[in-house]
Amino acid sequence: MNSIIDDASNSLLKSVNSPSDLRKLELEQLPKLCEEIREFLISHLSINPGHFASSMGAVDLIVALHYVFDTPDDRLVWDVGHQAYAHKILTGRRDAFANQRTYGGISGFPTPLESEYDTFIAGHAGNSISAALGMAIADMTTPGAEKRKTVAIIGDASISGGLAFEGLNNASNHLNNLLIVLNDNDMSIDNNVGALHSYLSDLTTSAGYNRLRNKMAGYFRKKGILTEARKRAIIRFNNSVKSLISKKQNIFEGLNIRYFGPFDGHDVVKLVKVLREIKDMEGPRLLHLCTIKGKGYRPAEENPTVWHAPGKFNPETGQRLSCGQDGNPPLWQEVFGETLTEIAKENDNVVGVTAAMPTGTSMSHLLNEFPDRTFDVGISEGHAVTFAGGLAAAGKRPFVAIYSSFLQRAYDNIIHDVAIQGLPVTFCIDRAGIVGEDGVTHHGLFDIAYLRCIPSMLIASPADEETMRNLMFTSLSLNAPFAIRYPRGKATTSDWKTPMHDIEIGKGRQIRRSDGARTAILTLGPALSSAKKAADELEKENIPVDIYDMIWVKPLDTELLKKVALTHDHLVTVEDGTVTGGFGSAIVDWLRENRMETAVTQLGVKDEWVAHGSVDLLKNLCGYDSKGISEAVRNYKNLGES
Amino acid sequence: MNSIIDDASNSLLKSVNSPSDLRKLELEQLPKLCEEIREFLISHLSINPGHFASSMGAVDLIVALHYVFDTPDDRLVWDVGHQAYAHKILTGRRDAFANQRTYGGISGFPTPLESEYDTFIAGHAGNSISAALGMAIADMTTPGAEKRKTVAIIGDASISGGLAFEGLNNASNHLNNLLIVLNDNDMSIDNNVGALHSYLSDLTTSAGYNRLRNKMAGYFRKKGILTEARKRAIIRFNNSVKSLISKKQNIFEGLNIRYFGPFDGHDVVKLVKVLREIKDMEGPRLLHLCTIKGKGYRPAEENPTVWHAPGKFNPETGQRLSCGQDGNPPLWQEVFGETLTEIAKENDNVVGVTAAMPTGTSMSHLLNEFPDRTFDVGISEGHAVTFAGGLAAAGKRPFVAIYSSFLQRAYDNIIHDVAIQGLPVTFCIDRAGIVGEDGVTHHGLFDIAYLRCIPSMLIASPADEETMRNLMFTSLSLNAPFAIRYPRGKATTSDWKTPMHDIEIGKGRQIRRSDGARTAILTLGPALSSAKKAADELEKENIPVDIYDMIWVKPLDTELLKKVALTHDHLVTVEDGTVTGGFGSAIVDWLRENRMETAVTQLGVKDEWVAHGSVDLLKNLCGYDSKGISEAVRNYKNLGES
Repeated sequence: MNSIIDDASNSLLKSVNSPSDLRKLELEQLPKLCEEIREFLISHLSINPGHFASSMGAVDLIVALHYVFDTPDDRLVWDVGHQAYAHKILTGRRDAFANQRTYGGISGFPTPLESEYDTFIAGHAGNSISAALGMAIADMTTPGAEKRKTVAIIGDASISGGLAFEGLNNASNHLNNLLIVLNDNDMSIDNNVGALHSYLSDLTTSAGYNRLRNKMAGYFRKKGILTEARKRAIIRFNNSVKSLISKKQNIFEGLNIRYFGPFDGHDVVKLVKVLREIKDMEGPRLLHLCTIKGKGYRPAEENPTVWHAPGKFNPETGQRLSCGQDGNPPLWQEVFGETLTEIAKENDNVVGVTAAMPTGTSMSHLLNEFPDRTFDVGISEGHAVTFAGGLAAAGKRPFVAIYSSFLQRAYDNIIHDVAIQGLPVTFCIDRAGIVGEDGVTHHGLFDIAYLRCIPSMLIASPADEETMRNLMFTSLSLNAPFAIRYPRGKATTSDWKTPMHDIEIGKGRQIRRSDGARTAILTLGPALSSAKKAADELEKENIPVDIYDMIWVKPLDTELLKKVALTHDHLVTVEDGTVTGGFGSAIVDWLRENRMETAVTQLGVKDEWVAHGSVDLLKNLCGYDSKGISEAVRNYKNLGES
Repeated sequence: MNSIIDDASNSLLKSVNSPSDLRKLELEQLPKLCEEIREFLISHLSINPGHFASSMGAVDLIVALHYVFDTPDDRLVWDVGHQAYAHKILTGRRDAFANQRTYGGISGFPTPLESEYDTFIAGHAGNSISAALGMAIADMTTPGAEKRKTVAIIGDASISGGLAFEGLNNASNHLNNLLIVLNDNDMSIDNNVGALHSYLSDLTTSAGYNRLRNKMAGYFRKKGILTEARKRAIIRFNNSVKSLISKKQNIFEGLNIRYFGPFDGHDVVKLVKVLREIKDMEGPRLLHLCTIKGKGYRPAEENPTVWHAPGKFNPETGQRLSCGQDGNPPLWQEVFGETLTEIAKENDNVVGVTAAMPTGTSMSHLLNEFPDRTFDVGISEGHAVTFAGGLAAAGKRPFVAIYSSFLQRAYDNIIHDVAIQGLPVTFCIDRAGIVGEDGVTHHGLFDIAYLRCIPSMLIASPADEETMRNLMFTSLSLNAPFAIRYPRGKATTSDWKTPMHDIEIGKGRQIRRSDGARTAILTLGPALSSAKKAADELEKENIPVDIYDMIWVKPLDTELLKKVALTHDHLVTVEDGTVTGGFGSAIVDWLRENRMETAVTQLGVKDEWVAHGSVDLLKNLCGYDSKGISEAVRNYKNLGES
């Protein structure tokens, strides 16, 4: 497919090395440019995978925005940001795009650390309105910046979250000229849910309104009387007609935000005209655009959830080349999803809660089997947890599956609405640890530290499928909040559907015993496999080590820990998360409290941000893969012998 | 004023020992009961202070709810909960009320640990809809529970937060019969802000609508044709008329929630009738009640912000007896508020952000001086932080003042929207540590643990006003997020307006040096004063100790720490927060990493929930007041000598 990249048909795109190049094009050339960008995306993302469908859907609006606004002086603030590939391609990162999401390459998300065109971090949904509002208000009082424009671009899934609502609710409090572009593709990663979603659908499909609007537009076009003043009037009139016919006052106007739309988000020429109309208007405004996820690539249009992040594919046939789901061994999320369904079959009180991620967490299994017992609340992690608290207070056994980095959004809900009351909610924390290509905003590094300080919270992490299943099963007999963390990617064994049974709370296990071992490696969760590999390497060097899979962070197996500390000179703790306040820190605190002076080396992520790249590479760089572990053992040994 | 409590005029209230007693009263007796409850509140709260104005405003709706609903089988879920005193009084806690908010007495907030009538924890705003929705949905699939009713009672300030919106947005997704009562008193603790707030005001004051509605009601009453069916029809008709006249579709109906109101929230007889009408309707509904904060006590009606939690007062005259603001020494929050204003006068880029707490944080000073540079975003802590991120990205120097326990609601915003980008936002964390009477939901115990694991975050805590001012001043020269934590209550000196200057980052200081000291006490923030007191006590026993005020948690003064560890046998760390992952833990981790074997005793809050009571008593019980500190020193000494 490199032929497409180098194809002469890409002639426009090649000439655009910055938005100012783009602004030299004629308006009529923009549809061709959009087409070329889509070809570019297809050819690149089929080889070097990324977020495909949403990026395809946002091409036209991105071209229109950079064409109309004077970026980077004017600011575009992307929400989530995985739709903004065209923005990266147009802002000097076309060639760099070949290495996107790889270590040392550009990020898959907008980030100010990478480009002056990326005005704010993106990754977690719903922050764009608040951040852009801050910029827009700041400019009003900054000498020389009064004329700068700020545009937040947010999807219909993100706008239904609480943070976005707080932004909308505050948009009219202080003088500002913020423009919010609502990119409405009627989808989140999975199907969108919630009342606001159906409200937006109503707006969009109000047949009478659309008919009348089209007629009017046609009439004015025919008459050739589209003066500047008239165009402005038409947009305003459209709104009034809309309210009248739909018999609804617009929710956004109820929040004192002027509403324009809905318009076709794929008609780039029309978009430019509309944006020019509303660009210089004063006060907060919202422009509602309807787009199609995957636009321009039929397989993606037809199945946008699968094509959200499809992996490599054959651009000609649409065949996906690596599904990562050959089942051998299964993904951790699959172990969760299938086990939850098994448990739910046995216990009528078991229910599942997901925040817009039935597919991503594999709660789709439960959804298929028990639709009435599965609750997808949309991108609303805070509500998900408090809602689960309510379910638990009424006697249900909720399993809440949320990615580690997104669970940060529900921190107070965990403390206030679950833990204080000791409610039995099981938090299944997916994507815990380094997640790889999604990078700094998505790594799940803090959950142990932020959960461990909460009284009554239990925390464990399985090293294998059998333990995972038993932990989930055991949670049913607990009367406390319980967090089970597990990583992105594949688990360990193929034959994993073992019978489930209760396991003892706060009990670890010895995995490897070597005569004469002075060092013991204490692992949490899947870090065990790296420890085993390290022990094998060290054995070849005649350095014996013992390994303990502690399973539980809280409560710690202090009986085992005491024994291990008394019988070794040196402990190495290994965790897939921050060492600050984490698993190793819990061990160190306990040893000091009990006046035990065994040396400890804590491995995990140090006090630093971790970039994007492959999981293996990043763990290596952070020093807690098998090499990092064996190095820590050797270092201590050499220290002792020197 | 005990005369009122024992007055024969309290005859109805005395007969009501539970809601089932209440339901035996005649409807016509309810206004008298409400009056008696208000007298009870005035007489009790004037002596044993609490949340006054909101509780006075909610008396009638509480009586009506317990009269109509079959509590505790039917569930009332309170939002925030400080308005629910009448609920406590009616549910078997009338006598216990004399000891509310004191250690061992009942809590100032609803809590399931206290009564079966308190169905869910309350304290942090906005959780009621999500929690009640969980219960309402759970009941639909629980055999025997299908007929249970669930009612969430939420104020107009709480409903403007993101969590409440997420709840509203999800209310119609799954089958349920949730009733939401919106207690609209047009106020939060301070004046309410935000677009939803003005929208509610519009709804309420739509004169044409109210006129018509009153006429209609009068007509039907006169004709004596208020049959059951007709009453229901009237309510529905009212809604249509409302939409028609206000030319607005109701926002709540836009979210698929049936809307009823607004009604007078102080007409208890009418409330009972309305509630009976809508009680058995199906699907999610919202009942909008207009109430007056402080209703029934003129001084509170006239100045509801002051009377939110007025302290002791003379019920006859309305004179408040302890304002706690004699300025000698000042409250910590005052030091913050006045210093911020001073800094803002010198630096045009300094701005302030508060989440509905201009008075509580004393950001009111800045608001008075620079209204255009002060942003009260309402109860929207997440937005507050992301908005501050946007302000900082556009060159401003935002100071965000939020109470420690409420800042938990903005955890992901701190990580994702500020820290990853290294934006210079200064977090002024008020109410850090034990806060006293507000209890478990309000103590600020976790901030050190949850912030310390965030890379690039700086954390400090001042022991005195001078350091506080210098830390705030120093933040202007930092290019990183910076958290300054300080407690509720009074600071240390009277003459505190010292000139400000930059101080060195990560540098602690020696406070006390005693010849022959084997133990060093390392304190953070105001814990220093307890350490000094302990040292004085120990000196009398000829036990010399040294004291170091570390000031910074992150970065730690490792140079000082090393010196101290090498010259002492025993360190005692003292912090007003959880020891799990906190300040002492940071010290222990560093010592272990550097193979230093000095013994450490970590004082602070252990891994447990802390109840309500006076700050001094709670610190004593948690073992980190001066007695706890001297005890720790003695224990180590005795250990060494035994």
